[in-house]
Amino acid sequence: MSDPEAVVVRLSLERLRREVEQALHDALPPEDAWPGTIHRAVRYSLLGGGKRVRPLLVLAAAGGADAQEVMPFAVAVEMIHTYSLVHDDLPAMDDDDLRRGRPTSHKVFGEAIAILAGDALLTRAFHLLAEVPRGWDGEQVRRRVDATALLGEACGTGGLIGGQVEDLESEGRAVDAGALERLHRAKTGALLRACVVGGGILRGASPAERAALEAYASAIGLAFQVVDDVLDATEGADQLGKTAGKDAAADKATYVKIHGLEASKALAARLLAEALAAIEPLAAGRTLLAALARGIVERRA
Amino acid sequence: MSDPEAVVVRLSLERLRREVEQALHDALPPEDAWPGTIHRAVRYSLLGGGKRVRPLLVLAAAGGADAQEVMPFAVAVEMIHTYSLVHDDLPAMDDDDLRRGRPTSHKVFGEAIAILAGDALLTRAFHLLAEVPRGWDGEQVRRRVDATALLGEACGTGGLIGGQVEDLESEGRAVDAGALERLHRAKTGALLRACVVGGGILRGASPAERAALEAYASAIGLAFQVVDDVLDATEGADQLGKTAGKDAAADKATYVKIHGLEASKALAARLLAEALAAIEPLAAGRTLLAALARGIVERRA
Repeated sequence: MSDPEAVVVRLSLERLRREVEQALHDALPPEDAWPGTIHRAVRYSLLGGGKRVRPLLVLAAAGGADAQEVMPFAVAVEMIHTYSLVHDDLPAMDDDDLRRGRPTSHKVFGEAIAILAGDALLTRAFHLLAEVPRGWDGEQVRRRVDATALLGEACGTGGLIGGQVEDLESEGRAVDAGALERLHRAKTGALLRACVVGGGILRGASPAERAALEAYASAIGLAFQVVDDVLDATEGADQLGKTAGKDAAADKATYVKIHGLEASKALAARLLAEALAAIEPLAAGRTLLAALARGIVERRA
Repeated sequence: MSDPEAVVVRLSLERLRREVEQALHDALPPEDAWPGTIHRAVRYSLLGGGKRVRPLLVLAAAGGADAQEVMPFAVAVEMIHTYSLVHDDLPAMDDDDLRRGRPTSHKVFGEAIAILAGDALLTRAFHLLAEVPRGWDGEQVRRRVDATALLGEACGTGGLIGGQVEDLESEGRAVDAGALERLHRAKTGALLRACVVGGGILRGASPAERAALEAYASAIGLAFQVVDDVLDATEGADQLGKTAGKDAAADKATYVKIHGLEASKALAARLLAEALAAIEPLAAGRTLLAALARGIVERRA
């Protein structure tokens, strides 16, 4: 990252990340709003760090589209990602004590408030997307609605929720490579795809551009999970900010378990090359999307 | 219910209820769709009986509006109501074994699937509302979006979720009449209001009609909870289809506890009269709305 172009890209991403943080902060009621501890719990999880990869994918894929049209969608995907983490960490699910380097929501606020905080984030995400400014024309409203429908599908039982169900039910069971890929295309891939393709919809991408974004999203979606599995097998909790070695302990199917460590690393590199090739034809957003794909594959946590 | 008009109203409500059942059935993937048990769990809770008061309020308030515009909203509110029951019944929350006369979701499918089934119902509700047909004009899309925003607000931390938080945190604490009313305006009232006012928005109600619907919704929202408290204190589990006497056992604030049984019954009757007076000026839907208000106050379960 020493050549001038790389520095420009890094500064762009840092600026966008700050804008996302501000928008996340502004999209929630204050900590002390009625009732009880719920807003403290919601803010604890949503504003407690995180790389904001999903909102950045939205903003990158949306190219230079109007912030008022795009930022609520970027905020919504991060809220949905966070709700899924809060619920997945619950004792009845993955029973995790640590997330993003801090105690999980139910450890701090108790199970009831953690469940409700997840519900609140999911609800606020779709509420935010329905708060469409009065003055918008039909095209703008239609793009918002279409992106929301894509997101709704990605978060449902064929996507995010279905992947978590399959993940829970695959514990201790033999899972082959095909079933593992299907699981992760649902659990991780569907939401990442909604970020990228949703960003494209919001800027009115052409069918060809949309196909490029689909291919890119498909590659980074799988790469994301492969790298997660590699890190879970090789890094400690200090690096990850969450419990390490958990997959093996829970006897979960992982890429490392099925393909081995070296083959998994090679797979991640191949998927990165695929993602970069896919966005070659794009006019807008290509540099940022490339940097985000590299960030996903080359991350250490 | 022996005069001819009453019979017509009853038959209308029965027909609408059947249409709602069919629409609920059609809005979900089949039981055996991938993955695992999630669709069985979702269908178990959503299609397991229930009086469908909320969808019927939507349809009544929407008067004769087009079914394609109104029914998805009616389905969405019932999904959201059901998700809230599934999550409220969890061991970490109200810890209930019985709902609508059957074992609760977590008793049948386990806690993890029950949490995810609730998440899936909430997600599908908003997904459904974003599935806006291609051919709609700007007015139709705008009405859908506005009704969705109203619903999103009603389900959030200022409404449904906030009410549940307050309810949990008020257990064993002294709660005065004002705080109890605020709790129930959020927990029960906000969603009922979204049904009634949302139905009005979907048929393009005038400001005067909307004000009438607001007043009606406010009265039936409170009446609903007052009657719930009266029934909890006076009926057995056989009648209620859920655990009876639970509020007193959990030392929860109720209308019966604060005002006494007779004063609570009188309050419910006064609220019914208020609701009926409020809809006097309405042209469309008045007869059905009146029958639904009576049904809420005069129910035995």
